Amino acid sequence: MKTLFVEETVNKVGEEVELYGWIDRKREHKNIVFIDLRDRSGVVQVVGGEDFKTLSPEDVVYIKGIVKKRPENLVNPKIKTGTIEVEGKIFKLISKAAPLPFDMGKHDLGLTLPILLDYRSLTLRHPKVRAIFKVQETVIDAFRRGLKNKGFVEFQSPVIIPETAEGGADVFVVDYFGRKAYLSQSPQFYKQIMVGVFEKVFTVNKTLRAEPSVTTRHLAEVTTLDVEMGFINSWTELMDMAEYIIKFIFEAVEKLNIEELRLYNASLPKVPKRIPRIKLREAQEIIYKRTGRDNRNAPDLQPEDEREITRWAIEKKGSELVFVTHYPAAKRPFYTMEDPEDPGYTLSFDLIGRGVEWMTGGQRINNLNELLEKAKKRGINIEKSELYLQAFRYGMPPEGGFSYGSERIVMGLLNLSNIREASLFPRDMERVDIRLTKLKSKIQNTKH
Amino acid sequence: MKTLFVEETVNKVGEEVELYGWIDRKREHKNIVFIDLRDRSGVVQVVGGEDFKTLSPEDVVYIKGIVKKRPENLVNPKIKTGTIEVEGKIFKLISKAAPLPFDMGKHDLGLTLPILLDYRSLTLRHPKVRAIFKVQETVIDAFRRGLKNKGFVEFQSPVIIPETAEGGADVFVVDYFGRKAYLSQSPQFYKQIMVGVFEKVFTVNKTLRAEPSVTTRHLAEVTTLDVEMGFINSWTELMDMAEYIIKFIFEAVEKLNIEELRLYNASLPKVPKRIPRIKLREAQEIIYKRTGRDNRNAPDLQPEDEREITRWAIEKKGSELVFVTHYPAAKRPFYTMEDPEDPGYTLSFDLIGRGVEWMTGGQRINNLNELLEKAKKRGINIEKSELYLQAFRYGMPPEGGFSYGSERIVMGLLNLSNIREASLFPRDMERVDIRLTKLKSKIQNTKH
Repeated sequence: MKTLFVEETVNKVGEEVELYGWIDRKREHKNIVFIDLRDRSGVVQVVGGEDFKTLSPEDVVYIKGIVKKRPENLVNPKIKTGTIEVEGKIFKLISKAAPLPFDMGKHDLGLTLPILLDYRSLTLRHPKVRAIFKVQETVIDAFRRGLKNKGFVEFQSPVIIPETAEGGADVFVVDYFGRKAYLSQSPQFYKQIMVGVFEKVFTVNKTLRAEPSVTTRHLAEVTTLDVEMGFINSWTELMDMAEYIIKFIFEAVEKLNIEELRLYNASLPKVPKRIPRIKLREAQEIIYKRTGRDNRNAPDLQPEDEREITRWAIEKKGSELVFVTHYPAAKRPFYTMEDPEDPGYTLSFDLIGRGVEWMTGGQRINNLNELLEKAKKRGINIEKSELYLQAFRYGMPPEGGFSYGSERIVMGLLNLSNIREASLFPRDMERVDIRLTKLKSKIQNTKH
Repeated sequence: MKTLFVEETVNKVGEEVELYGWIDRKREHKNIVFIDLRDRSGVVQVVGGEDFKTLSPEDVVYIKGIVKKRPENLVNPKIKTGTIEVEGKIFKLISKAAPLPFDMGKHDLGLTLPILLDYRSLTLRHPKVRAIFKVQETVIDAFRRGLKNKGFVEFQSPVIIPETAEGGADVFVVDYFGRKAYLSQSPQFYKQIMVGVFEKVFTVNKTLRAEPSVTTRHLAEVTTLDVEMGFINSWTELMDMAEYIIKFIFEAVEKLNIEELRLYNASLPKVPKRIPRIKLREAQEIIYKRTGRDNRNAPDLQPEDEREITRWAIEKKGSELVFVTHYPAAKRPFYTMEDPEDPGYTLSFDLIGRGVEWMTGGQRINNLNELLEKAKKRGINIEKSELYLQAFRYGMPPEGGFSYGSERIVMGLLNLSNIREASLFPRDMERVDIRLTKLKSKIQNTKH
């Protein structure tokens, strides 16, 4: 297997090296060919003779050559290997690429979103696109490590479920051996069950929602970061944990993804020692005073409200993140606990990050009868969720949790304008790898 | 939040402690009540007065008491807190449990599988059942850490797919906004695409198969551990990596799950410095010679063959694991590379662990035209998998990979007799949390 990555050549001046990678760019200058050889680590300039002219972008090649120091005036400060170049001696073509549909050698691909996704297997190779998923990897891994440090146990939550977790619409239906089953919209019921087993749990989970709308912030399939913890003394401990873990994630990204942040000109969100926490009604009052927009009786924040309360938090609290709490009971799931000191409002919270909801959470009802009553009032046929009820029938501590959207975090960290950019293979109403209209017409073409 | 776990009381002799947990067992002796208080860490004996008599198994309680050393003759060597007991002063009932359907206080629950699963939220709390999922956590986490140590990048593979990855049957169909989509049977196409991006990748993935049979080794939903790597010089490097990672997993389990292994009287599989590697035909010949069973022309190993070749490997090679290689091309997926030195047979391998297939892998065809040809010969409509083809159209290095079933590994490590025991919430033809026949009759009851 390949052992040397192109970026490591910078430490090999004077040595003969064997490199494997893709042709990123090629320029010809008389009898000399300049090649940017790319692999996952970066790019290096290879200078070759006339025989190198046969190579073209995305060809996979083996190149043997000598690492040379570049003259001072030819140093390229933009790349890590900018002080050296490889004098290419011989090369071997490993895999020939077809002519590219667009120039992959630019710093910014500059493609429209549909084209970016139509050619996903190609565009993902672009350093700036690829960088997004290095950040996603860090976010998910830091989430797991940070919680393990706090004694949480990871578990695997199922994708196929017998009944919708929150009694909602927007659920995908599966043909399950001739019966109907559903795709999980959330690991909610399972993580609560697991509190009875391990007390403090988390899961990295695929969440599937038949979102009937096309927005820049919703996908049909996302990776959520779910936490649930028992034996809490107060619901504020849930927010404390949510705050701990997002800050842990920021630290990891800061440490591991300097280069990726730089590509996006992005810096980590500013947060004070304690992220501000305000009630929904307070937020609405603030927004009303600042903008004159009167959503004081709305049960939730509208997108423009989320952006406005973030502006307020930055100005007044020096925080790009803000917890909004106490959503009305009617707008939260039936299992959400009401605040005994603020009837009609729940011990629930969202975390708004850079103007977008990143996380939602709350304390849950842990008394079986209360739970049954609340479900009944909402017309939810909870009796079918036998395993969920079992957890409460046989003793459950006070508990709660929260769920982060990994794509929302990455989108926020890199200031991406569309969540589709933060998903390797985004699924929505219009696309599953390829455009669905295209698929449909292709099928029709095949049949007719 | 709760800060002290019951097992930590063993270091608190003479101190007053506040404990939170579940009543595991209760015995009364005149005016004295002996309680085993359980939490995720283990159990501790609490001795209480008559007021403790109101407590019953699975009640969630708060108990304040003093930790006392037990007299020498009352030490219980079977539990970690066996040298102490807690003199219970006061308790508070946090959540009352209903009467249990069976005794949860036994070392072995001794339930039939259907009952074990019908009461899953309760039975998962039993220390011996719960132990399985501590091992699963270790297996999955070690898989990730071991590969990160080798420079692999983790990615998220989608659940919803446009077309079956291997052109096979047994695929679940989803109603996707009025169109048909499918559930991923394997991240195969996506991990190959990702080799073009990060060269060496892995994913912890939900695999969903509409297995129409009920066996002790198959589930409709499993968690697979998938690896794919590019720029290999030989397909044997794939086996090397598969061997590295399973040994890395063993080391982690040995280090972190001593207690769990003990509960199952299990020891880690014996493996020599190098796990034996034999061709399928050699294996069949060996089996024929040993048993007289002539499966020498079979395209695969039958379950009894897998067990027999394991017995051979233990006896002759001192190994409970064995690689079987070179399956016939017709029985492997179309993208599997044939061995140029052994035409008709592929550069493919399975790892048989303790008589069961744990892993499957191989080198893939990385030439677009060859791939198209092979798909066409099998009648696979590969043209629809546009993103997959794109990866090869635009330059792909020699590559391959493998996929471990996490439940198969756990099953093997703990000598479980049914894979359902190794899945928190097992899905099969007959069950999605609750028995499907029951569900059906319930639905009918609701309607009629």
